[in-house]
Amino acid sequence: MKNTIGTSVSVTLFGESHGAEIGAVLDGLAPGIPVDEDLIARQLEKRRPAGAISTARREPDAFRIVSGVFEGRTTGTPLAILIPNTDTRSGDYTRGALRPGHADYTAHVKYHGFEDYRGGGHFSGRITAVLVAAGAVAIGALNARGVRIGTHILRCAGIQDAPFAGTPAEMDALDGKNFAVIDEARGAEMRAAIEEAAKAGDSVGGVLETVVTGLPAGVGEPWFDALESLLAHALFSIPAVKGVEFGDGFALADRRGSEANDAFALENGRTVTRTNHNGGINGGITNGMPVRFRCAVKPTPSIALPQQSVNADGTREETLTLGGRHDPAIVHRARVVADSVTALVLCDALTQRFGTDYLGGML
Amino acid sequence: MKNTIGTSVSVTLFGESHGAEIGAVLDGLAPGIPVDEDLIARQLEKRRPAGAISTARREPDAFRIVSGVFEGRTTGTPLAILIPNTDTRSGDYTRGALRPGHADYTAHVKYHGFEDYRGGGHFSGRITAVLVAAGAVAIGALNARGVRIGTHILRCAGIQDAPFAGTPAEMDALDGKNFAVIDEARGAEMRAAIEEAAKAGDSVGGVLETVVTGLPAGVGEPWFDALESLLAHALFSIPAVKGVEFGDGFALADRRGSEANDAFALENGRTVTRTNHNGGINGGITNGMPVRFRCAVKPTPSIALPQQSVNADGTREETLTLGGRHDPAIVHRARVVADSVTALVLCDALTQRFGTDYLGGML
Amino acid sequence: MKNTIGTSVSVTLFGESHGAEIGAVLDGLAPGIPVDEDLIARQLEKRRPAGAISTARREPDAFRIVSGVFEGRTTGTPLAILIPNTDTRSGDYTRGALRPGHADYTAHVKYHGFEDYRGGGHFSGRITAVLVAAGAVAIGALNARGVRIGTHILRCAGIQDAPFAGTPAEMDALDGKNFAVIDEARGAEMRAAIEEAAKAGDSVGGVLETVVTGLPAGVGEPWFDALESLLAHALFSIPAVKGVEFGDGFALADRRGSEANDAFALENGRTVTRTNHNGGINGGITNGMPVRFRCAVKPTPSIALPQQSVNADGTREETLTLGGRHDPAIVHRARVVADSVTALVLCDALTQRFGTDYLGGML
Amino acid sequence: MKNTIGTSVSVTLFGESHGAEIGAVLDGLAPGIPVDEDLIARQLEKRRPAGAISTARREPDAFRIVSGVFEGRTTGTPLAILIPNTDTRSGDYTRGALRPGHADYTAHVKYHGFEDYRGGGHFSGRITAVLVAAGAVAIGALNARGVRIGTHILRCAGIQDAPFAGTPAEMDALDGKNFAVIDEARGAEMRAAIEEAAKAGDSVGGVLETVVTGLPAGVGEPWFDALESLLAHALFSIPAVKGVEFGDGFALADRRGSEANDAFALENGRTVTRTNHNGGINGGITNGMPVRFRCAVKPTPSIALPQQSVNADGTREETLTLGGRHDPAIVHRARVVADSVTALVLCDALTQRFGTDYLGGML
Repeated sequence: MKNTIGTSVSVTLFGESHGAEIGAVLDGLAPGIPVDEDLIARQLEKRRPAGAISTARREPDAFRIVSGVFEGRTTGTPLAILIPNTDTRSGDYTRGALRPGHADYTAHVKYHGFEDYRGGGHFSGRITAVLVAAGAVAIGALNARGVRIGTHILRCAGIQDAPFAGTPAEMDALDGKNFAVIDEARGAEMRAAIEEAAKAGDSVGGVLETVVTGLPAGVGEPWFDALESLLAHALFSIPAVKGVEFGDGFALADRRGSEANDAFALENGRTVTRTNHNGGINGGITNGMPVRFRCAVKPTPSIALPQQSVNADGTREETLTLGGRHDPAIVHRARVVADSVTALVLCDALTQRFGTDYLGGML
Repeated sequence: MKNTIGTSVSVTLFGESHGAEIGAVLDGLAPGIPVDEDLIARQLEKRRPAGAISTARREPDAFRIVSGVFEGRTTGTPLAILIPNTDTRSGDYTRGALRPGHADYTAHVKYHGFEDYRGGGHFSGRITAVLVAAGAVAIGALNARGVRIGTHILRCAGIQDAPFAGTPAEMDALDGKNFAVIDEARGAEMRAAIEEAAKAGDSVGGVLETVVTGLPAGVGEPWFDALESLLAHALFSIPAVKGVEFGDGFALADRRGSEANDAFALENGRTVTRTNHNGGINGGITNGMPVRFRCAVKPTPSIALPQQSVNADGTREETLTLGGRHDPAIVHRARVVADSVTALVLCDALTQRFGTDYLGGML
Repeated sequence: MKNTIGTSVSVTLFGESHGAEIGAVLDGLAPGIPVDEDLIARQLEKRRPAGAISTARREPDAFRIVSGVFEGRTTGTPLAILIPNTDTRSGDYTRGALRPGHADYTAHVKYHGFEDYRGGGHFSGRITAVLVAAGAVAIGALNARGVRIGTHILRCAGIQDAPFAGTPAEMDALDGKNFAVIDEARGAEMRAAIEEAAKAGDSVGGVLETVVTGLPAGVGEPWFDALESLLAHALFSIPAVKGVEFGDGFALADRRGSEANDAFALENGRTVTRTNHNGGINGGITNGMPVRFRCAVKPTPSIALPQQSVNADGTREETLTLGGRHDPAIVHRARVVADSVTALVLCDALTQRFGTDYLGGML
Repeated sequence: MKNTIGTSVSVTLFGESHGAEIGAVLDGLAPGIPVDEDLIARQLEKRRPAGAISTARREPDAFRIVSGVFEGRTTGTPLAILIPNTDTRSGDYTRGALRPGHADYTAHVKYHGFEDYRGGGHFSGRITAVLVAAGAVAIGALNARGVRIGTHILRCAGIQDAPFAGTPAEMDALDGKNFAVIDEARGAEMRAAIEEAAKAGDSVGGVLETVVTGLPAGVGEPWFDALESLLAHALFSIPAVKGVEFGDGFALADRRGSEANDAFALENGRTVTRTNHNGGINGGITNGMPVRFRCAVKPTPSIALPQQSVNADGTREETLTLGGRHDPAIVHRARVVADSVTALVLCDALTQRFGTDYLGGML
C-alpha cells in the first residue's frame, strides 16, 4: 500500500519537503477519543530542530485537523491533519550531484526524473511531522487505555545513556524532554559530541530504545502479522533507521537457551516472566510484559564535508559540497517518530483484536 | 492479513506441527515460470535436521503441488504446495507447563485454550517447510531473471564465519551446503559448539547474513513499503528471529556520516557506490548494489535443562523438564527460511514494479 | 489480493477443474467455534449436480479439514479444507475452439497460453466446492450468533417463485431443499423448463434472492467498505453472476423518494423501519432490518448447440460443438455459493467491528 | 481499508459535509502523467448542482493539489487534492429526527453519537467532489493510453435515453454535457420530470450506463479480483447506488445460453465477439470488447414532504419536515462520480497488470 500502513487503523502520508502542504490521514480510530491539540503540539515540538545540534530550518508546524474530529473527539471517520510548508528555501536545492546516503539516486531511477527533487521531496524527513501529529492522536488514545510508550536515546555518537526500565516516573521524565535521555549528564556529553561533529562538517548516529507498558497479553498474530513484523515494518519506514531488534535482540545470538529463555512465574495470580529477554513478545504475540525494542539510526547523510558523487543523469563524476541547512544528528528528533509509529501500529493491533470500539473505551 | 503476506505476489500458510498436513498457497506469480521439483526438494533438504546437531524428528517432506502448475510451468493461478505430517509423536506433548521462550502462553491467552498445543501447533517451526517449498519456486523465478540470494551463518555460538562478499562462486558454494558457512573450518567449530551445548542440555543461537545480487535499481517504495520494511516484516515472521539490520546496521549508529555514506561513482557508464554501508537500499528503494542484511536468531527455546514455569491455567508454578525431540540450534536450518522469505518478498516487489508478466520473462 | 478476500476474516482459494486437489484456507476465524462436518457435507450436497437438470459429472466431494480445527472446534489459526478431484475425464477437453461466454479466451491472453485449459482450469465452477465448504464453517459460526442466511431461486427460465419474507420457517424449509424455492409448484415448473432447455441443447439462467436476518445495526463502513461494496465484491466473484442489487435495487430507479425511503418507527423501544426498500443497509452500514439482495445468474455458457468461435491462437474461425458434461442451469447450484460468500463477508465485517473473539461467543 | 480503495493505485478519502476541508490522496500513479487542472475543473463542474433541478448549495470547488505534482506532471508519489468547504450553513442542521433513507441512524449506532451529523457528515455526497477531482487525474492518464470512459443517464424518472454505443463521437458529446444524455429531447423530458418532482416536494432516481473503450484484453483476475468485483466494489460506494449490472445484466437471467453467449470471430486478425452481452468481461478478465455496466441510483432521500421518523436517541416518534437545500435528483450529478471511480479502478488494474510505469507511457 505504499504510503498507507495498517489494517483496522491505518495512516496515509502525503507531501514533499518543498511542496505546499504535508498531511496524514488516520482512518479506523474508534469514535469518542478525546483529541488533545496541546498534546499534538508538544509532540511536534519534540521533533523540531533545536539550537546548535539541529538544522537551522524553522517550521512553525501549524497543524490543522480538517476532518474526523467533532466537538473535541474523534468521530470514527478519517481524521486528516495538514501542515503547510512555509520556510522552504527552494533556491538552496538544484538537481545537482546525487547526495550519498540519500534517496536522490533511487528516486531518480524509480520515477524517471519526474520526482520533486527539492530537499529530498517526498523522501524528506520533513514528512515525519505529520506522522508525529497523527501519532499524537494515537498516543492519546493508548494512554487513556493504560498503555504508555517511552523512547530514549540509548546511544549517540558512541555515548551510552543509563538504562531505561520503563517505570512511570521515567516515562513522565522522558515525556517532558526534547533530548530524551535518562541520564542528563550523558545527554550533555551527547550534545557536545553532536556539536563537535557539526563543527567538523560531519554528523553522528545513535540507537533509540523504546519500552511499551500496559499492553494486554494476546495481541499480535502468528507468522506474517507477528507484532514484531508489524512494528519493524513501521519502524524501518522511518528515514535513517537501518536496524531493529526486540528484547535483547542481536545479543541473544551469542547466548545459550538457558540464558535467553524467560522463566514463567505467578505474581498475584498473574502469569509473568522473571526476565524479559524476549521483549514482551513470544511467537509474535504479546505476553503482558513490557514490549522493548531498539532502532539503529544512521548518521545524517547530509554533511558539509565534500563528497564524491555523480550527477543525476549519470554522465559525469562530481565533488559534492552541500549547501542548505542540515542536522548534524537526527537520532534525538527521530525519537518521537519512533513513539508515533509504535502508537499507530499498536492502535491497529488492538483494534483488530478487540474491535473498533475498543480505543474509544466503550467496552 | 495474519497468515498471508504480499500484495502482487502473496503467500498464505496453514498447518500445525501435529496436524494432518501443512501447506502454502503462492498466488500472483507470472505464468510460464518453470517449476523445478528437484530444486524444491534440495531446498527442503537444507531445512531438514541433520545428525547430532538437530532434532531426531525425521520428516520425509514429501511435498505435492496440487494446483497452479501445468506441464511443468506456473499457470499464473494459485500454486498450492502440501506436505503431510507423518512422524508426529503426539504422545510426547501434553498441555503441561508453559515452555519458556515459546508461544505456549501467548497462544493460550489469544486463543482461550482452543489452540492445538501439540508441538507448538501452528507456531511450530515445522510450518517453515512449506514456506521453504514455496520459496524455492520464487528462487527459481528470480534466478532466471539474474537475481541470486545467498545466506551464510555469519556467527553461531559466538564463532564468526569468514566474510561473504556475494560472488557467484560463493553463492554456488553456499547453495551446495546444508550447514552454510564460507569457511568450513569455522563451520566445524560451530558444529562442535552446538554438540557441546546439546550435551549440556542447552542450545545456542547465531546470526544469518544474506546477500542479494542482480536486483535492478528502483525497486521498493518510499515510507511504508520501503524494501527494508517489506523484508523485515517477512524476516521477523521467521520463528526465533529477534533482530534485523540492513547494510552495516547497528554499527552505523556509532559512525560519522562521512564514514556511513556511500560515495557515488561511474563504472562502465553505470552509477554505482564505492562502498555499500547502506546495504543496497536508499530511501527504501534498491540502488543496484547488492542488498545485504543480517538476522539475529535466538537460541532454540526448547532445552533439556529444567526450567521454572507455570501451568497453562496459571494456577501453580512448576518445574518444566522437556521430553520430545529438540534442536540444540536452528540457525543453520533457519538459513534456507531466510532465503525463502527474501525470495517471496522480492518476487512481490518486482511484480508490483514491472507487472505480472515480468517474472515469466515475457518482457 | 487475487484469490484471497477479506480483511479480519479471509479466505484463499486454489485449484483447477482437472488438477489434483482444490482447496480453501479460512483465516482469522475466532477460536472455539464448533465445526460441524455434517453441515459442511449438507452444504456441499446442495451444490452438487442432481438428475436431469445438471451435469453428469459426479464428485464425491470428500473434503478433508487438514488444519485449524482441534477437538472439534476452530483453533483461531488457518483452517484449510481440501477436496481431491476424482472424476476428471480430461480426455473430454482439448485446447480446441474458445468456448463463448467462458474465460477460455481471456485466460489465454492473460496467461499467455500457460493456463491449465482443461475444463476451464482455475476458472471452473468446480472451485466453488471449497468455497461452499469454507462458507459452511462461517454459516455455523453466524447461526450460533443468531444470524441466518437464506437464498431462494426468485426466478428461473422466466418463472417467478413466491415471495421470500425471511421468516425462520422459510429459512428452515429452504435449508432442507436442494432446489431452493418457496413455492414447490413453481419449482416444478422451473425444473421442467430446465429439462426442456437441456433437450434443446441450450441452457437457462435465473435470479437468486438472499435474505440475512439477525445482524446487529452498525456493521459496515462508509465509502469503500460499505457492506454493499463488500458483498457485491464477493458475489461478483461467483461465476455467471452478472448483476447484484440491494433492497428494491433497479426498481428504485423508477420510484420517487417518498416511495423509496423507509420511514422510521419505534417497536418495543427499538428503532425499526416500516418498509425495507433499502435492503437493511443505509450509507453502507446495517440498520438492523433484514439485509436483502438479488444476484442475476446468466445461463450456463456450455451448451450443446453449435456455436461460432475461433481457435485459441486466433488463426482461424471454427464452429464449436461441445462434448463433455454440462449443466443446463446453474442457478440452483449457485444458490449455496451465494449463501457461502455472504457468510464469509459477514464474518469478516462482524470480526472487524467487534474483534477476533466475537464469533467464538466469548464476549 | 474503509476509506481507501485500490492495491497498486489507491485513493483515500476524508472530510465531512460541514468540516473544514475535504480531500483525496491518490497513491501509486505512474510518474510523468500530465496533470490538467482544467480537466479537473471541468469534471468538478459536471458534478456541481445546476439550476432548478439541484440543490441551491453552491460550492466554488476551488481545489488545491498540495503534493505529488511537480512541473505539471505526476511525480509518482502521493497526489493530494483538497477542497475547502465554504458554503456550509450548519444552522440548517441540528441533531433532529433521523432522515429516512440516509445514514443518520446507522452512523449514530456505529459511532455511538460521536459522528459529525451536520449535513450527513462524512456520509455526505459532498465528499464525492474530491473523488471526482482524483478521478479526473486518472481519466487524463487513461485517455493518454487510449482508454475512454463515458456514462449517460440511461433512464431518469422513468424516461429512457437513446442507446449509447460508445463511439468516439458519442464520448465527445457526453464529455461536453453536464446533463449527460445521448438524446437531448429525452434529456429535456427528464429535466421537466425532475422539476415536477421537486415542486411536489419529492425526488426521482435513475439508471446510469457506462461504456469503457480501448482497454486491452487480459486485465482483471479470476475469483475475488474479477474486474466486475473491483468495479462493483467501487460503484456501490457511491451514495445512492443500489444496483450494478454488467453487460445485459439482469436481463441475461431470462435468456437462454444461445442468446447470452457472445460468439467469437476474427476481425483483421484480432479475436473479437460478434455481440457483447457479457459487457467485455469473461471470467473476471477483459476480452478487449467495450466494458459496459449500469448503476441503479435511488431517488434522493432528502425530500420536502413530511416523513415519519424517530429521534436519534430512539425515545420518541416524530414527523420530520426537512429544511436545508436538497437535490430533487442526483443521477445526473452521480454520472461523473461513476466515471471517476471507474477510472480509478482501471488505473489500479492496469498498473497491477503492466507495472508502475505503464500509465506514464514509458513502456
